[in-house]
Amino acid sequence: MTALLNEIPAEDLCPALGHPVLSSAAFLNEVSSRYPEAVSLAAGRPYDGFFDPAELGDNLLAYQEHLTEREGLSPGEVTRRLFQYGRTAGHIHDLIAELIANDEGIHVPPESIVVVNGAQEGMLITLRALCNAPGDVLLTTSPAYIGILGAARLLGIKSAAVAEDEDGVDPAAVAAVARRLRGSGQRPRALYLVPDFSNPTGHTLSAERRGALLEVAEEEGLLILEDSPYGFLADPPLPSLKSLDTTGRVIHIGSFAKTCFPGARVGYVVADQVVRHADGSRSTLADQLALIRSMITVNTSSVAQAVIGGILVRARCRLREHNAERIRFYRENLAALLRALDRRLPDDVRHRLGVSWNAPAAGFFVVLRVPFPADENLLTVSARDYGVVWTPMSYFFADGGGSRAMRLSCSSVSAADLEEGARRLALLVLDTAQMRR
Amino acid sequence: MTALLNEIPAEDLCPALGHPVLSSAAFLNEVSSRYPEAVSLAAGRPYDGFFDPAELGDNLLAYQEHLTEREGLSPGEVTRRLFQYGRTAGHIHDLIAELIANDEGIHVPPESIVVVNGAQEGMLITLRALCNAPGDVLLTTSPAYIGILGAARLLGIKSAAVAEDEDGVDPAAVAAVARRLRGSGQRPRALYLVPDFSNPTGHTLSAERRGALLEVAEEEGLLILEDSPYGFLADPPLPSLKSLDTTGRVIHIGSFAKTCFPGARVGYVVADQVVRHADGSRSTLADQLALIRSMITVNTSSVAQAVIGGILVRARCRLREHNAERIRFYRENLAALLRALDRRLPDDVRHRLGVSWNAPAAGFFVVLRVPFPADENLLTVSARDYGVVWTPMSYFFADGGGSRAMRLSCSSVSAADLEEGARRLALLVLDTAQMRR
Repeated sequence: MTALLNEIPAEDLCPALGHPVLSSAAFLNEVSSRYPEAVSLAAGRPYDGFFDPAELGDNLLAYQEHLTEREGLSPGEVTRRLFQYGRTAGHIHDLIAELIANDEGIHVPPESIVVVNGAQEGMLITLRALCNAPGDVLLTTSPAYIGILGAARLLGIKSAAVAEDEDGVDPAAVAAVARRLRGSGQRPRALYLVPDFSNPTGHTLSAERRGALLEVAEEEGLLILEDSPYGFLADPPLPSLKSLDTTGRVIHIGSFAKTCFPGARVGYVVADQVVRHADGSRSTLADQLALIRSMITVNTSSVAQAVIGGILVRARCRLREHNAERIRFYRENLAALLRALDRRLPDDVRHRLGVSWNAPAAGFFVVLRVPFPADENLLTVSARDYGVVWTPMSYFFADGGGSRAMRLSCSSVSAADLEEGARRLALLVLDTAQMRR
Repeated sequence: MTALLNEIPAEDLCPALGHPVLSSAAFLNEVSSRYPEAVSLAAGRPYDGFFDPAELGDNLLAYQEHLTEREGLSPGEVTRRLFQYGRTAGHIHDLIAELIANDEGIHVPPESIVVVNGAQEGMLITLRALCNAPGDVLLTTSPAYIGILGAARLLGIKSAAVAEDEDGVDPAAVAAVARRLRGSGQRPRALYLVPDFSNPTGHTLSAERRGALLEVAEEEGLLILEDSPYGFLADPPLPSLKSLDTTGRVIHIGSFAKTCFPGARVGYVVADQVVRHADGSRSTLADQLALIRSMITVNTSSVAQAVIGGILVRARCRLREHNAERIRFYRENLAALLRALDRRLPDDVRHRLGVSWNAPAAGFFVVLRVPFPADENLLTVSARDYGVVWTPMSYFFADGGGSRAMRLSCSSVSAADLEEGARRLALLVLDTAQMRR
């Protein structure tokens, strides 16, 4: 019997695979790789210039020294720490506890921290823990980071959008959405947001709204998932929601992707909430998250943890200080992008065309609003004919929206490239707007 | 307003958290840490003696050299490879393709390989891709590896058990279960199995059954998820199911946990199946799995991949040869455990008591069948009063079973400890059996 080659119909696979939140990054990568000469205002990755391969070994050694000298581990114990299956919740939790106390004003026991394979895994395990019944709903800002929308889709979790303005999400709007959901028999479980220099908008939740949002969370029985990968760029920083949380309403998701490096795939979840079991016993939410992650990736690579651990040790668990040069670089890059846009699309031109953008104080992103669809067709034209790529804002809306806006990123290129990218982008905008007259 | 501290009722969290497949490992760890002097016949981790921290840096350098000299990457490209977000499907896929061609007789294009955060993530993304409708069912051997049962639970996927004997799973039984499921309106999607020296039983799927199982997969429209972390210990090896697969029925899940080291958290999925999309276009299943994993962990730590890549480079992509010493050690350890059991529970004693065990040719595990419940109570007594720990076989049954058997592991301790462990275990067995007379 000669059997035919097995072909799997795509409709028999996970339905989330067909959703734009999963496929959009692939399109962007493909366009970028087809036109390598294009200036990238699309990539939200950090700047290469801060990375040096020689440091990897140094950081590994610094962590080993720390284990020996500070934690008092024997050589055999050091070996096990680096090579074996380890603690499910990770082994650099104590260093992370010190870091977030120093840098974020978050004071929690190390045991309430779960080290994860990047913030993405943190989102996934938190969603899996919290949203299980068919009526459980995740609230997200709209637009929102693609990773949270994708994780919710993969797990079949419904999400509800709360619009964001320049001061972040409006607590009253959060309360209204939560009530509407409950009114229709659903259960709002948590609100996901990026409070500082949000991806994709660059917006920051104002100080007033931080307090008000915590009150709404309390009143509406919501948890808040705070994800702040760009918060280290703030000067001065606003208090993190977790640092203001006195009642256990905030789960803080941390990332080392921008403060250390993304390839490590190391992040963390701060979940000091108390879980009450049917038998009356108590545990922490962190314990439960660790159990879930044991069935997803077992734990976080010990080598990756050791490298990040070494960076933390060498930085005396103060990454804001340690990253002073990076912070200056990214802040200057953002200022350079905003200046270049100003120069290339001066006041009169942008008012005539109906073009505008926001001006965040820091962060990686700016939103450019245009009077025409900024879709994948235009992106292809932009890359091919104008030599510049950007991200369609529509990618960040779960249910449509953002069709006439672009996310511009300033993080991965030099100031000179930003200048050139803005020049090319202005040409695209002028030509496209005029063509449509 | 002073708000009360937020307490989360456990019944509001993911229901899988309450299932023994998630909590059992925690119990085992807790017992082991409470009685650190107990000999561990429970831990399935590799032997510490093969690990040397100094090698981490050497392997990193070997991989960097490979990138420069063999792949021709510039210094900037090497830096990006090590520090940035990388290719979602990983960057050591070509080395892995060479490895599995050399060691497993599996010949596939590198693009059909997805590098993952350990085999566990490979299982999770494969299940998520394949099982989505409420009637989709995963077949597993019974007993089965805890990781696959846990991943299915987390995703809310139903599983159906197919009993295993000393020659592995019976293909006719697989067909019968598949037909029964279809008869009740469900859809059997895939069979998960560990064909070589299975965890927990130590059983190996016979050569005859390998061919027959592929035919059943073809006839019943099943995919086979082949997970073989212990196959490298076979001498001579039986052909892997993937190497026999001419029609795209087998998805091969690979692990470096035992051939390199578990802390790396690097594994891979070989998924060269063709996926047919609604618009007539085609992709590979590997592409779809990579999309799913982009929403779980983004990708596999570049540092961890680099360390494993360095080991592969230094081993010229031949880990069976490279691991000759390890293979000898584990085979001798298993033989030592079996000899010690024979000596401590000789023929007449074990027949009188109704005690028996299997004798695999290799692998990490042996099953000891006893005439009394081998449950968590007995495990606590065993650790406290006899100084030996083992794993209750009941942990590996999704729906009950295995109550009178223990999984014994020979992998993590020295031959002398195995001897002592077997002595203590025999005392426990003799005492417990006599007490119950």
